Amino acid sequence: MAHDSTPASNPASGQGHPRAARRFELLTLGDELLLGLTPNGHLTWIGQQLSRRGVQLARNVTVTDEAAAIVAELHQSWSRADVVITTGGLGPTCDDRTREAVAEVLGQKLVFDPAIKQAIADRFVRLGRKMTPNNLKQAYRFERGEVLSNANGTAPGLWVEQGGKVLVMLPGPPNELQPLFTEQVLPRLARLGLISESEAYVQLRTAGVGESALETKLQPIFDRAGTALSVAYCAHQWRVDVRLSSPGGQLSIQELQAIADECAALLGEDFVCYGHDSLSKVVADLFRAQEKTLAVAESCTGGRLANLFTDVCGASKFFRGAIVCYSNDAKMQILDVPECLIRQHGAVSAECAVALATSVAETLEADYGLAITGYAGPGGGTEDDPVGTIYLGLHSPQGVWSKKLNHPAARTMVKERAVTVALDWLRRELGRAARNPAAPLHRAPLIG
Amino acid sequence: MAHDSTPASNPASGQGHPRAARRFELLTLGDELLLGLTPNGHLTWIGQQLSRRGVQLARNVTVTDEAAAIVAELHQSWSRADVVITTGGLGPTCDDRTREAVAEVLGQKLVFDPAIKQAIADRFVRLGRKMTPNNLKQAYRFERGEVLSNANGTAPGLWVEQGGKVLVMLPGPPNELQPLFTEQVLPRLARLGLISESEAYVQLRTAGVGESALETKLQPIFDRAGTALSVAYCAHQWRVDVRLSSPGGQLSIQELQAIADECAALLGEDFVCYGHDSLSKVVADLFRAQEKTLAVAESCTGGRLANLFTDVCGASKFFRGAIVCYSNDAKMQILDVPECLIRQHGAVSAECAVALATSVAETLEADYGLAITGYAGPGGGTEDDPVGTIYLGLHSPQGVWSKKLNHPAARTMVKERAVTVALDWLRRELGRAARNPAAPLHRAPLIG
Repeated sequence: MAHDSTPASNPASGQGHPRAARRFELLTLGDELLLGLTPNGHLTWIGQQLSRRGVQLARNVTVTDEAAAIVAELHQSWSRADVVITTGGLGPTCDDRTREAVAEVLGQKLVFDPAIKQAIADRFVRLGRKMTPNNLKQAYRFERGEVLSNANGTAPGLWVEQGGKVLVMLPGPPNELQPLFTEQVLPRLARLGLISESEAYVQLRTAGVGESALETKLQPIFDRAGTALSVAYCAHQWRVDVRLSSPGGQLSIQELQAIADECAALLGEDFVCYGHDSLSKVVADLFRAQEKTLAVAESCTGGRLANLFTDVCGASKFFRGAIVCYSNDAKMQILDVPECLIRQHGAVSAECAVALATSVAETLEADYGLAITGYAGPGGGTEDDPVGTIYLGLHSPQGVWSKKLNHPAARTMVKERAVTVALDWLRRELGRAARNPAAPLHRAPLIG
Repeated sequence: MAHDSTPASNPASGQGHPRAARRFELLTLGDELLLGLTPNGHLTWIGQQLSRRGVQLARNVTVTDEAAAIVAELHQSWSRADVVITTGGLGPTCDDRTREAVAEVLGQKLVFDPAIKQAIADRFVRLGRKMTPNNLKQAYRFERGEVLSNANGTAPGLWVEQGGKVLVMLPGPPNELQPLFTEQVLPRLARLGLISESEAYVQLRTAGVGESALETKLQPIFDRAGTALSVAYCAHQWRVDVRLSSPGGQLSIQELQAIADECAALLGEDFVCYGHDSLSKVVADLFRAQEKTLAVAESCTGGRLANLFTDVCGASKFFRGAIVCYSNDAKMQILDVPECLIRQHGAVSAECAVALATSVAETLEADYGLAITGYAGPGGGTEDDPVGTIYLGLHSPQGVWSKKLNHPAARTMVKERAVTVALDWLRRELGRAARNPAAPLHRAPLIG
């Protein structure tokens, strides 16, 4: 949940180019969204892209791709918004009348564009496939409008400027929409002064501090900056993002960055990075920069941490592998955890976490070993260690430690929390090792 | 993408109780949705729940939780829809005027309800926390309306029937909204005849057959059933769902099930299950029913398959664990793949997949071993085996086989495709083993 120290309607923030608030609306078309077959990823992605450029979407409407529904919604959006973006409804099998419906609202004609037809035909030749007649309807554009070429599909995007307003129609598949939006739509909107030329805010990512503790800590810095500064907090699992902007444009991006640098220095290890990198990406970058390797032993998280690392391109540079030791036998057979240790302390214990971390690092010949063992639920758990109890173990060149977490929740949430805290622990220890390679690690405090 | 053999506006389907089409609209409130901080999961989830009961949402609007925006949108939805559902805007820190704004549109008064206050106070006592004054505004309901009690949070849901229409207001957190919707909203809507009493369609899940091949195969069965039957196809990665319904209510659910049974018999192994179970759940159930165990070796999929299995509750009954052998060293050291095999055939080869499958089953003492090795990209690949090439290996009590896939795509898509095909292979082989436990498996055909 985001909360903002300025009123909610926080329009385009110009870096020295203040401009009036513009209203952006998004129209997402498709039965599959309303039937719950596909999540509305376009809202999330376009919302993010625009907010990075200082604009908050005012409204999103999802309707079927029937012409009548589109006409009704577009009439409404077009009458009061400055920029209307539509997604979907341009495919060869979509209702033929989508483009015509939009043309009707705009009071424009559709014209056949031989250049679009040629681009579609070329694409089919390149892919060694045969063009079908229904692709031809994708070769129409608005009489007074432009074409946004689509490198990854047949339907181009369409761009119309009319009466001081902008209409953008985008194809539905994300791999077509996203590059088209980033490379063609954002630059055009910026040229018209409708969004910031560059990122409209400086974002600090933090971990391990709650939102209100963070606010208390940073407020003195923000008070000194005065009312030109706007601060928004956004809490995620274990992480909070802080966004600094200057809606009136009084503070330049350099001034905002200087304030952010002051925050980062005050936060120390709790500061993760500027921008939008994920925790797994940050940790991966640290491993690669330090030329260290990692191996992972996962019990209750069952491969979730390994999967995150291997989503990062080039993970093989540092990631040696993982052992998902889901049974006690696996812990004993592959990772040589002594049977008496499991009998005495249990598989969910600090002792077992430490043994797993050390053993997986040795087995996979890695510099660092990280282990996760716990009760993800819904079954299992003891009186002392109920469902949601997780032990982490970390083996590093400096030593070996354990940490206990408790965060009762649904199974997949327990897994996510455990993995996030584990990533953050790796990040902190790699940071310490980089700052002070000779010293042993301090004992990390237990987490309640 | 869904496509339907009947016109798109396919309203409530009654099992012997045909009723007029009702218009449902969903109003999702929250800046975090428009800023792209949180996906609009409520649209997806509520859309699914309603479509199971024969209703397609006509429209979804997302706006900020400012009172003025809510009033404007609600006026519009309330004037033309039969049922309006809102999510969010009920939390203790939300704009105070949300409830008042809605009351204004309804022409109702808000009244303080001591029973709600008591429920909130009891909840705080139970959690050992102190109630704050802003929780008191959650104790208001509409004068002529009902309260939907919330077992997982402080804000109850609100229900209003007025002028033949229904307004439902739901709290935003999914763990509060979902049980409240399933247990209280769906039964009330069914009692009013606005949705089907039970599932409105019979769904067959299939795997390994394309949508058009499936249609060709099943059409003769559907032709015999006549025009009372409506068929919708919905294609996913490697899987297609087929939904059979009778919008006019001429066919009973038993008659629909009989048609579905005929389809299932014709499809043979390509039929996965009825209903909504995931492929990993279906495979997990087969393992548990046959009391067999599984171990997994993952190279390029890096823990994704293991993570899916361990998301299934009770996975420890059959899942022995996984080895994410991301480096060649790991393949040789832990899984004893001979160095000469990797040197001769490469780590991405049928030979290596087979070696990994056998070895992981032996190492983790499992009945079945499944291995995945390939090029997820963006780097890697050879001329013969470009990015997107995956080899699967399967070791079972009946023998050991390999399969080759090629599906060039973005890294995470390649991983997802590989894992889906691997799950489907396990499903088929477990099915064959159950039908004919003594016979050796037939050689599975290579997949192009």
